[in-house]
Amino acid sequence: MQAFTFYNPTKVYFGKNAIDNLAKELNNCGKNILLAYGGGSIIRSGLYDTVTAICARCGKTVYEVSGIMPNPRTEKVYEGIEICKKRDIDLILAVGGGSVIDCCKGIAAGAKTERDFWQAFYRNKEECLAATPIGVILTLPATGSEMNSGSVVTKWDENLKTDYTSDCLYPRFAILDPTYTYTLPRNQIVYGAVDTLAHIFEQYFSAPDDGNPSDYISEALIENVRDNVGKALENPEDYDARSNIMWDSTMALNRIIGCGKNQDWNSHMIEHSLSGFYDIPHGAGLAIVFPNWMRYVRGNCLKRFVRFAVKVWGVDPAGKTDDEIALAGIQAVQDYFASIGAPTTLTEVGIPAERIPEIAAKVELTPGGYAPLTVDDVIKILQAAV
Amino acid sequence: MQAFTFYNPTKVYFGKNAIDNLAKELNNCGKNILLAYGGGSIIRSGLYDTVTAICARCGKTVYEVSGIMPNPRTEKVYEGIEICKKRDIDLILAVGGGSVIDCCKGIAAGAKTERDFWQAFYRNKEECLAATPIGVILTLPATGSEMNSGSVVTKWDENLKTDYTSDCLYPRFAILDPTYTYTLPRNQIVYGAVDTLAHIFEQYFSAPDDGNPSDYISEALIENVRDNVGKALENPEDYDARSNIMWDSTMALNRIIGCGKNQDWNSHMIEHSLSGFYDIPHGAGLAIVFPNWMRYVRGNCLKRFVRFAVKVWGVDPAGKTDDEIALAGIQAVQDYFASIGAPTTLTEVGIPAERIPEIAAKVELTPGGYAPLTVDDVIKILQAAV
Repeated sequence: MQAFTFYNPTKVYFGKNAIDNLAKELNNCGKNILLAYGGGSIIRSGLYDTVTAICARCGKTVYEVSGIMPNPRTEKVYEGIEICKKRDIDLILAVGGGSVIDCCKGIAAGAKTERDFWQAFYRNKEECLAATPIGVILTLPATGSEMNSGSVVTKWDENLKTDYTSDCLYPRFAILDPTYTYTLPRNQIVYGAVDTLAHIFEQYFSAPDDGNPSDYISEALIENVRDNVGKALENPEDYDARSNIMWDSTMALNRIIGCGKNQDWNSHMIEHSLSGFYDIPHGAGLAIVFPNWMRYVRGNCLKRFVRFAVKVWGVDPAGKTDDEIALAGIQAVQDYFASIGAPTTLTEVGIPAERIPEIAAKVELTPGGYAPLTVDDVIKILQAAV
Repeated sequence: MQAFTFYNPTKVYFGKNAIDNLAKELNNCGKNILLAYGGGSIIRSGLYDTVTAICARCGKTVYEVSGIMPNPRTEKVYEGIEICKKRDIDLILAVGGGSVIDCCKGIAAGAKTERDFWQAFYRNKEECLAATPIGVILTLPATGSEMNSGSVVTKWDENLKTDYTSDCLYPRFAILDPTYTYTLPRNQIVYGAVDTLAHIFEQYFSAPDDGNPSDYISEALIENVRDNVGKALENPEDYDARSNIMWDSTMALNRIIGCGKNQDWNSHMIEHSLSGFYDIPHGAGLAIVFPNWMRYVRGNCLKRFVRFAVKVWGVDPAGKTDDEIALAGIQAVQDYFASIGAPTTLTEVGIPAERIPEIAAKVELTPGGYAPLTVDDVIKILQAAV
């Protein structure tokens, strides 16, 4: 394994009634809480009442930032920062999925500086020296943001969706109760699963291929997601399936499977540009991009794609060339996405081919896990996805 | 997945020259360092000189506790506690394997209390409220102690080897350089691998069997250990193999694969009693106990043993009953231990059958992962191991 640093201090409370740990955590922080949430599903589910009652019992004063949208935007971050500074917030309590948590990380970083959060952190990647502590109550398993230090925020007027990472931004605690996911709409289960798998793929399909534990664990997680998503779609209250999926999504991006890997993330960068232009769900964009990215880059890491096809997707290698085996594995991924109801073409989500060059030009390309991509490469990948 | 809490704040620096991170960590702590090590292999390897030079450059005053033996004993812990109290130690730097680290955890807990460390923590399991910070430089991958909060110490005059766990005892940082393991004697590679596998088994062979990610990850880690140990035995300077084994051993007991599992640990308890009477290597004792424990309990969890046999050890199920499949998998484990040179009988390590009742009576039995054991059960397991 090549050199890495691993550090993840988030405390996770997992299971039915994990919310019972909230009071203990609140008693370890100051009086002023910023409660952050999305479009109101937590009000309908009763979680809002539960959380505010616990806060009240702990003697906390609760301020709110609500209406945080999918692909959270800079406006909401500024709104939260203003409250933090004005109200001397001691803890930001993010109740929701990755969008709410990511927005809260922007707020947390911006609250402790005079710098503009967007320019300083998300654009210029300056160091974050302090942040308001964050606690998470997760309702949508997908992004892993509940147990990592990364955040993605969108500046809509520039069609720019970009990320920022800092050790300051690990949530102090995360409460993961799988029963909160019982009422999720079907497409959110699907997009969450695609996002989880995509996170694993970004780390798995990258050098070095030294047979390290991270790759073996990645394969285990892919199999576990696949073995459980169908059950959750069939029976939304299947606790085992829901809980397995929830922990898979956290494990997919809590840095464990990135240990010793270069990591790629270009498929995510391409998707960020898609949803920076067209406000499509992140998981939908990933389902469209990933199989086409795989086909485009497979020649750079054919052995890995062969292993993936045979070991993870059960492709029979008999009578096939390595490239045919690799392509069969990639087709299995695309077929799987389609089978659970994810889109696999740009047409399905209403993105026309003629906007591809403009979208591709905006992609913030990474060095890549096996080989770098150019804007021209991105255009070809997206053209194959029409 | 059933409810669990996961928390692990240890920062891991992994890879060639990971020692370059030591100065940064030392600059974050006070002036007085207690350097703890074992029998002098770090002096012969030059690591002692490297570490003391870095401490000197950082302006630290270094005190020492050395000669920490395998199966570390209370005497050494008392020696370290006395230095900590007298010299106002700010950081305990454990340079070695699990025995050195475990001894340092006893020292760290005892240094911050007026209570007797053995009585209060290891015997009475009282809460540890504060501990001296610990840093680790690992030279022997096996116990996972570098990234967990547990410790095992032996009171030799009572033939009692017992454990203690506290969130206070997570090392602040751990430096893992696989090249430090190049010079390990062959039997330490073998016993380290057995210990790693045994840690995985203790967690894997326990209820609930809800198809959770922990089980899938456990299987991945078992396969990774098996794919790499032979390479390391054949070529001691195979960096990939060494590094994979090193990270496997850490992952086997950093609490990740215990998430959502009852865990068993009775094989470890039996081994602790063996090495509490006969000072045999922990890994040797585990290789003797585990296959016999597996055969004894298999009826309580036959489905799990069938899965293990087929998925992990490639047992062909055709024409076999479930019990035959399970037994073939268990035999594969025992054959594997023998193939890498681990003992598989008590006779091989000089433990006579007539002492079994006395050894069994001293085992600190746990509730068990599938079913509890009695002293009589332990006697039968050990009799099968003669």
